[in-house]
Amino acid sequence: MIGHGFMGAAHSQGWRVAPRFFDLPLAPAMQVVVGRDAGSTAAAAERWGWAESATDWREVIARDDIDLVDIVTPGDTHAAIAIAALEAGKHVLCEKPLANTVVEAKAMSEVAARAAERGVASMVGFTYRRVPAVVHARQLIADGRLGDIRQVRAEYLQDWLMDADAPLTWRMKKDLAGSGALGDIGAHAIDLTEFITGQRVERVSGIIETIVAERPLLEHGSGLSGTASTERGAVTVDDLALFTGRLSSGALASFEATRFRTGRKNALRIEVSGSKGALAFDLERLNELEFYDATQPETELGFRRILVTEAGHPYVGSWWPTGHMLGYEHGFSHQVRDLVVAIAGGERPEPSFDDGLHVQRVLDAVEQSSAADGVWVAAEG
Amino acid sequence: MIGHGFMGAAHSQGWRVAPRFFDLPLAPAMQVVVGRDAGSTAAAAERWGWAESATDWREVIARDDIDLVDIVTPGDTHAAIAIAALEAGKHVLCEKPLANTVVEAKAMSEVAARAAERGVASMVGFTYRRVPAVVHARQLIADGRLGDIRQVRAEYLQDWLMDADAPLTWRMKKDLAGSGALGDIGAHAIDLTEFITGQRVERVSGIIETIVAERPLLEHGSGLSGTASTERGAVTVDDLALFTGRLSSGALASFEATRFRTGRKNALRIEVSGSKGALAFDLERLNELEFYDATQPETELGFRRILVTEAGHPYVGSWWPTGHMLGYEHGFSHQVRDLVVAIAGGERPEPSFDDGLHVQRVLDAVEQSSAADGVWVAAEG
Amino acid sequence: MIGHGFMGAAHSQGWRVAPRFFDLPLAPAMQVVVGRDAGSTAAAAERWGWAESATDWREVIARDDIDLVDIVTPGDTHAAIAIAALEAGKHVLCEKPLANTVVEAKAMSEVAARAAERGVASMVGFTYRRVPAVVHARQLIADGRLGDIRQVRAEYLQDWLMDADAPLTWRMKKDLAGSGALGDIGAHAIDLTEFITGQRVERVSGIIETIVAERPLLEHGSGLSGTASTERGAVTVDDLALFTGRLSSGALASFEATRFRTGRKNALRIEVSGSKGALAFDLERLNELEFYDATQPETELGFRRILVTEAGHPYVGSWWPTGHMLGYEHGFSHQVRDLVVAIAGGERPEPSFDDGLHVQRVLDAVEQSSAADGVWVAAEG
Amino acid sequence: MIGHGFMGAAHSQGWRVAPRFFDLPLAPAMQVVVGRDAGSTAAAAERWGWAESATDWREVIARDDIDLVDIVTPGDTHAAIAIAALEAGKHVLCEKPLANTVVEAKAMSEVAARAAERGVASMVGFTYRRVPAVVHARQLIADGRLGDIRQVRAEYLQDWLMDADAPLTWRMKKDLAGSGALGDIGAHAIDLTEFITGQRVERVSGIIETIVAERPLLEHGSGLSGTASTERGAVTVDDLALFTGRLSSGALASFEATRFRTGRKNALRIEVSGSKGALAFDLERLNELEFYDATQPETELGFRRILVTEAGHPYVGSWWPTGHMLGYEHGFSHQVRDLVVAIAGGERPEPSFDDGLHVQRVLDAVEQSSAADGVWVAAEG
Repeated sequence: MIGHGFMGAAHSQGWRVAPRFFDLPLAPAMQVVVGRDAGSTAAAAERWGWAESATDWREVIARDDIDLVDIVTPGDTHAAIAIAALEAGKHVLCEKPLANTVVEAKAMSEVAARAAERGVASMVGFTYRRVPAVVHARQLIADGRLGDIRQVRAEYLQDWLMDADAPLTWRMKKDLAGSGALGDIGAHAIDLTEFITGQRVERVSGIIETIVAERPLLEHGSGLSGTASTERGAVTVDDLALFTGRLSSGALASFEATRFRTGRKNALRIEVSGSKGALAFDLERLNELEFYDATQPETELGFRRILVTEAGHPYVGSWWPTGHMLGYEHGFSHQVRDLVVAIAGGERPEPSFDDGLHVQRVLDAVEQSSAADGVWVAAEG
Repeated sequence: MIGHGFMGAAHSQGWRVAPRFFDLPLAPAMQVVVGRDAGSTAAAAERWGWAESATDWREVIARDDIDLVDIVTPGDTHAAIAIAALEAGKHVLCEKPLANTVVEAKAMSEVAARAAERGVASMVGFTYRRVPAVVHARQLIADGRLGDIRQVRAEYLQDWLMDADAPLTWRMKKDLAGSGALGDIGAHAIDLTEFITGQRVERVSGIIETIVAERPLLEHGSGLSGTASTERGAVTVDDLALFTGRLSSGALASFEATRFRTGRKNALRIEVSGSKGALAFDLERLNELEFYDATQPETELGFRRILVTEAGHPYVGSWWPTGHMLGYEHGFSHQVRDLVVAIAGGERPEPSFDDGLHVQRVLDAVEQSSAADGVWVAAEG
Repeated sequence: MIGHGFMGAAHSQGWRVAPRFFDLPLAPAMQVVVGRDAGSTAAAAERWGWAESATDWREVIARDDIDLVDIVTPGDTHAAIAIAALEAGKHVLCEKPLANTVVEAKAMSEVAARAAERGVASMVGFTYRRVPAVVHARQLIADGRLGDIRQVRAEYLQDWLMDADAPLTWRMKKDLAGSGALGDIGAHAIDLTEFITGQRVERVSGIIETIVAERPLLEHGSGLSGTASTERGAVTVDDLALFTGRLSSGALASFEATRFRTGRKNALRIEVSGSKGALAFDLERLNELEFYDATQPETELGFRRILVTEAGHPYVGSWWPTGHMLGYEHGFSHQVRDLVVAIAGGERPEPSFDDGLHVQRVLDAVEQSSAADGVWVAAEG
Repeated sequence: MIGHGFMGAAHSQGWRVAPRFFDLPLAPAMQVVVGRDAGSTAAAAERWGWAESATDWREVIARDDIDLVDIVTPGDTHAAIAIAALEAGKHVLCEKPLANTVVEAKAMSEVAARAAERGVASMVGFTYRRVPAVVHARQLIADGRLGDIRQVRAEYLQDWLMDADAPLTWRMKKDLAGSGALGDIGAHAIDLTEFITGQRVERVSGIIETIVAERPLLEHGSGLSGTASTERGAVTVDDLALFTGRLSSGALASFEATRFRTGRKNALRIEVSGSKGALAFDLERLNELEFYDATQPETELGFRRILVTEAGHPYVGSWWPTGHMLGYEHGFSHQVRDLVVAIAGGERPEPSFDDGLHVQRVLDAVEQSSAADGVWVAAEG
């Protein structure tokens, strides 16, 4: 595993727990964690249960006893690591966004495609695809329960920047983070839409905005926290993105990604409206799926709150009895399970680097549209 | 109409509005309102749209041009007025509770039965039976959609007594109000249970409690409001009632009536659980009915929130288009509509005085059980 | 009252009921209802309680005993009637949208401004401004409880066109209805945003869409219902509008108006996010307002569901005790109350025709933006 | 760990994960799992990550390298194992209910008290005490935010027995399970009430009921699942318990434990009403706590939905960033954390065996009351 921040903890938990609850065809061994600083990396290895730590990812990738590289570093380093790993014949799990630019993502996707022909797997970490309610939603749509998709609303709402004096972390700098709310959380809204509907966002029109444009510099601290300095610097990424997308089928989807929706902590929500029904999901209530079946009698119509905690629901049967809630981190176990099963079976895991590239293209098109007064811009190559 | 407090306003609104939205077989004329004080009664007649006012209900009942008497006075006067009116051949609508004692209620019920044989109608004002969602619930159960009823939870939660220094109004005195939370709102919970399930509460075990036993006397003011005096007096009614009832079918129902459920303003709620489904209703969201259809596929089970605002729902088609909300007072128009239709058709309206008597018996049995250390007491005869 | 469809019923109910619950400085008399067909107009007068009926609105406007004209006809006739009435010195209440075109709305606004100088009042019927929870929301924002407004989400979601074979009524024809979802319900979302925030939508970028472009012609029937013919015709208005607006303060607001959000019956919703708090409202739960007070301690933060049914809430004290729900039509009584109070006091009622014109400009700008590939278009003259 | 069913999996997950997210003063080693069948026990050890397996718990308890015994067997075996372990100087974590009878629980409690004097810790596994929202609720009450507790409603609602043909498993046999819904889930409702309010249930009045009294015998299968035989047998435990309890302060609490509330999967709910506020919790939304602060201004009162996912909330800071959900199993990590911290610090962990005994006494009193026609029975020794 390259990197060991918040995502490192989540991925580690996935690797540790998945083999306990799922019958995996291969037994993953948590071998080595790689970081820039030897001390903190060794501590992370200890804490998260990796056998070793290292500071040079190139050396680790070169090792014969390493079969898979899990990349959880910031987006600007993904391309170099992933390409090197794939070319070294290692399977790769790369945290989203695939890269900070379309150019990088495209290169990664091409390398991944060639690697796949040699049986080397690659997967991008849109973990919310592994929430049982989300998979269940996709299945209901695939089964035709919603009929024709008429429109989609997808939003990812947070409020952690609402304090205008919160300090300037790496997530607010374009050179490190690539983009702001758009790339960080808007990417999830796009991928979720595409995953659930089975369609692609082909064209977009929208605007990105920086609501608080200047913030105190970060004095000390790392990651997403730290103390504020008296000096101020420019926020160079968006903190709000509003856009509309045209899906493959012609239906419209409207999107919002924001770090300023006061009171919304982690509300990745999607509502899909079809000719025969509708579905609504909110990550803040991740064990629930709202389903409206328009084929029921007129006087009995209503959104029903399905507790997605039955043995028949995706992944759920491997955990606890009926009615027992899963949490955020379970998605990482599911991701490990699906990846390992795909590798063992010689199948190409999803979402692929090509899926990741496509999301990157949509993000790029939104930025272009915003810069061009809102005109529609195609997301495809 | 005898009486002109809060209930007088609600009943007046029913009489005024019902003929506008429903095709009534008879045209009600709002003739005379009766009260103890000439001045305030005349003002009430003016405000609520009655042609005249009067202070002697006996005289009014004797008038030839009066066909129906609507009783909205406190419970201690119901028996005398209703009996006189029925014996004078007037139809009677009597606000709940039917009376303050079983003895009175029994006398009223007997007079009403004899009057019915002469074509004189009587009805007790359990208005919540006229909420569209409630009628819809009853219908779903009658249609067998819940299968066998396994258990019921019914509660009426308010918090208007939570201030221990709120003054002692007539509602807290046993001689005037008959009982407290039990008779005032518990009666609704019982009637709703019986109406929705089509069963009777036959035996009960429970406790009634006075949480705040002493309050400031009321200095000035009338009805339910007024200023507090420095002297204090005893609260002689319950403000919390908790009891369990055995229904005709053998199923158990648990009840709560309280004026101390902090934050609950007017939450008359019922949940009925059956072998094929369940229903939940809350008066604080009176346009909604939750329905759980256990015959749906396992992965699609969930309580659905039916907006009971479709043309096909009870009463709704006479009001507004789809999705437009009704309020508290609409029940009074529905009550007028049902009463007038029954009278015109020569049918006996429901709930009858006998239904009212039965509720009174249940209330009485709860008080007996409470006094007898919680033992089970029969509610019948 | 000119016109007597669904809106005629609602306005009549407002005129009938308002004087019963509010102390009005003037006593409105429901004199005459005007329609094209003598028979159905006479029936409407009878049903909704108007003293007379007539078929020529010009004659009625000329009458000396008419002080106020209430216009509830389709939008294409608003301008002619309102202008004539104002010039005849009659106060005017005009249902929204003010007109079908900006040109008409502008003319009306100018006439209204001149009339106002002569003491003749005019008001446009954005009735949702009279919902207690909405007024309470506006007040909280005006009191600074939300701090700086950072962003707004406003949507009006319906699904009554989801059946692709529902017949083509006047609401789907551009010449009669002016526009589709945009003008019919999007107008409400815009007005609500402006009313609650106290800001104007100054520029917009967006798209309007016709999801089902061809429908069966209407064989018989009137208003919004009727039977379908076997021939088909083109839907010439939008049924979905998605747009973003820039508010006066610089904040962005995103809007959606749709007749295709499966399962949403009448969901006019708004969420306002500020630096100190947030508010959320949904017309499907019109007695509730969600309020997030960001100044509370970190561990106690959360959206609270305020039941807007306390005596201290706007309009509520004139109706029922605590916790008793109001419905859709109560807004019409509040509208009458506010209009009559303004007229009696010589004040200019709100929303003015100028407010109505502004909304019309925003609608027009959305259509222009949609036609121009999504570029931003100013809403102001 | 003695036993390896569903609870064994949950406890194992707690032991495995807790050291990764919490800084524990001692490093737990998962040594040996004990079961009756050698093969399945070895498989469980492998699956859940224990170093060894064994079939004789007495031998394991005698080992020097075992410091702590975690008991997850059915309730009829708790007493023998726990007493032996404590007398051998091993710390004990015993799953609830503490025992199947008061007599056993009393013996265990006495042994535990003596062991505590020798520094040997014991704890009963009421894991729901470790849900962050629950701890937060307790703290708010301890801080006086609710004022005087006026009443409590606690219920644990499930529906897994609603199929009358579900087979007779050990949970429905009195000799194995001790009691039914009452002991299995009612125990949680009692403990939660006592934990959150800091009070004891002193006296009770209630009824226990067996709704479906006869079921198909279990042909094959183990634990809670299996196939049905054609023969039928008697259900010897309750499947519904309704009771009222008197708390130490004099306030009343009403309880329900049921396996027949159709559509409710795992709804352990509690609502506490006080003179200054109220709290509501539902295990089906375990990351949320509803809080009503009655000291807020009248027009701003409402239950607020606190997402208990902030760093300042109990246990939460050790997991994920703001707004990331925890699940059912996290409580087991919290339990391990608290137990290990208490042992290392020489403190007596809670809930103690004495707490467990008290719950057992309440359960016993409910059974006695039910058998004695509902009279009030004291829960204390």
